[in-house]
Amino acid sequence: MNIILASTSTLFGGEYLAYLKTEIIDLYQGIDEIIFIPFARPGGISHEEYTQKASDFFATIGIKVRGLHEFDDQAAAINSAKGFFTGGGNTFLLVKTLHEKGLMQVLKSNVESGKAYLGCSAGSNIGGLNMKTTNDMPIVYPTSFECMGLVPFNLNPHYLDPDPTLKHNGETRETRIKEFLTQNNIKVVGLREGNWIRRKGDQITVEGTQLTRIFEPGKAPYELPEGSLL
Amino acid sequence: MNIILASTSTLFGGEYLAYLKTEIIDLYQGIDEIIFIPFARPGGISHEEYTQKASDFFATIGIKVRGLHEFDDQAAAINSAKGFFTGGGNTFLLVKTLHEKGLMQVLKSNVESGKAYLGCSAGSNIGGLNMKTTNDMPIVYPTSFECMGLVPFNLNPHYLDPDPTLKHNGETRETRIKEFLTQNNIKVVGLREGNWIRRKGDQITVEGTQLTRIFEPGKAPYELPEGSLL
Repeated sequence: MNIILASTSTLFGGEYLAYLKTEIIDLYQGIDEIIFIPFARPGGISHEEYTQKASDFFATIGIKVRGLHEFDDQAAAINSAKGFFTGGGNTFLLVKTLHEKGLMQVLKSNVESGKAYLGCSAGSNIGGLNMKTTNDMPIVYPTSFECMGLVPFNLNPHYLDPDPTLKHNGETRETRIKEFLTQNNIKVVGLREGNWIRRKGDQITVEGTQLTRIFEPGKAPYELPEGSLL
Repeated sequence: MNIILASTSTLFGGEYLAYLKTEIIDLYQGIDEIIFIPFARPGGISHEEYTQKASDFFATIGIKVRGLHEFDDQAAAINSAKGFFTGGGNTFLLVKTLHEKGLMQVLKSNVESGKAYLGCSAGSNIGGLNMKTTNDMPIVYPTSFECMGLVPFNLNPHYLDPDPTLKHNGETRETRIKEFLTQNNIKVVGLREGNWIRRKGDQITVEGTQLTRIFEPGKAPYELPEGSLL
């Protein structure tokens, strides 16, 4: 497999995908066209506008982008594609849409066959075993929480450390993930913004300048530096 | 109906339920025993310990508490109860448990018949039409997101204003609720901590010292002061 699962598309104050540019060039070596999956976007911008945004970035590295929504037969489009990028938004909406269209398994098979895959945020969540560690609001009801399992664990994108100054009694991100571990025997990778997971063949590493926080059942959470194997 | 749906059980630096004490005395007038529903709690403390925590508070106002988990026939226990309190935790776990045990409708019927109901956080979410505006992590998959509909809208407990100093690209609470409105034609009441909804018969008001933020499809969000009708 050849994939990047990134915490976020955009760093604070940065341009869309700019911090990942070198990595993205490496990911899509030899590919001149990819399919963009815009289904996570619940409003604000249309699928066309969202695809245009991705297209604007990929034009700078000589890659053409087509939105999956443009195709009548979307499964066939995935089967014919050279590579994929799934943008962020709401994970519930993305997972519901992919399951309802019967595309989750089609996409999984294509990525497992070696086609390049980039996900950001919600697009990274669907690379995990299931979507039970998303931060998103359950604005729609998917027929299942199961995802592609491109990596043998779950992700928590936009992982955020507790703010000790906050006078608020909502659960912290760490508390939520520990709650997940009481109900599921699955490792969770807390990806801080600016970090990503890189899978090349069977080798899976964490990348990015921040430490990555790992949660496993029955262990204290721990941190891994960039380049560590997962 | 006679209900309180509170944003949180505990204010920052305060004791469990302390800020609601006067309201709780009013809610349960003439009642000497209630059933506590502990099913939202995913870990850390057991159902017994959680029930004991509720019981310790209610002892100060002369009300005995029994945990619903203590009963073999939980539907019968709900039908025989004089009043209810559902504690906070994880809304997905609470909703999954109530649906699987067939108790959501039983509880709804009993509360609609006039029995006193107090919810905090997750226990308040289930008073709304559905749980699609919870902040919680989807750590388990419920058979449905539908809730009791004790009020004709949804709630967002622990509602939090955006932090302008945060260099983080995760969605704000307001963005998440606006995403919900793109997919659902349902009003959302953003309950800041310290606020609650009070229903007496057909009259539904917002209470508490902070303003309450209301989100409706096709309208700009707006704020309501305490005592306003919903």
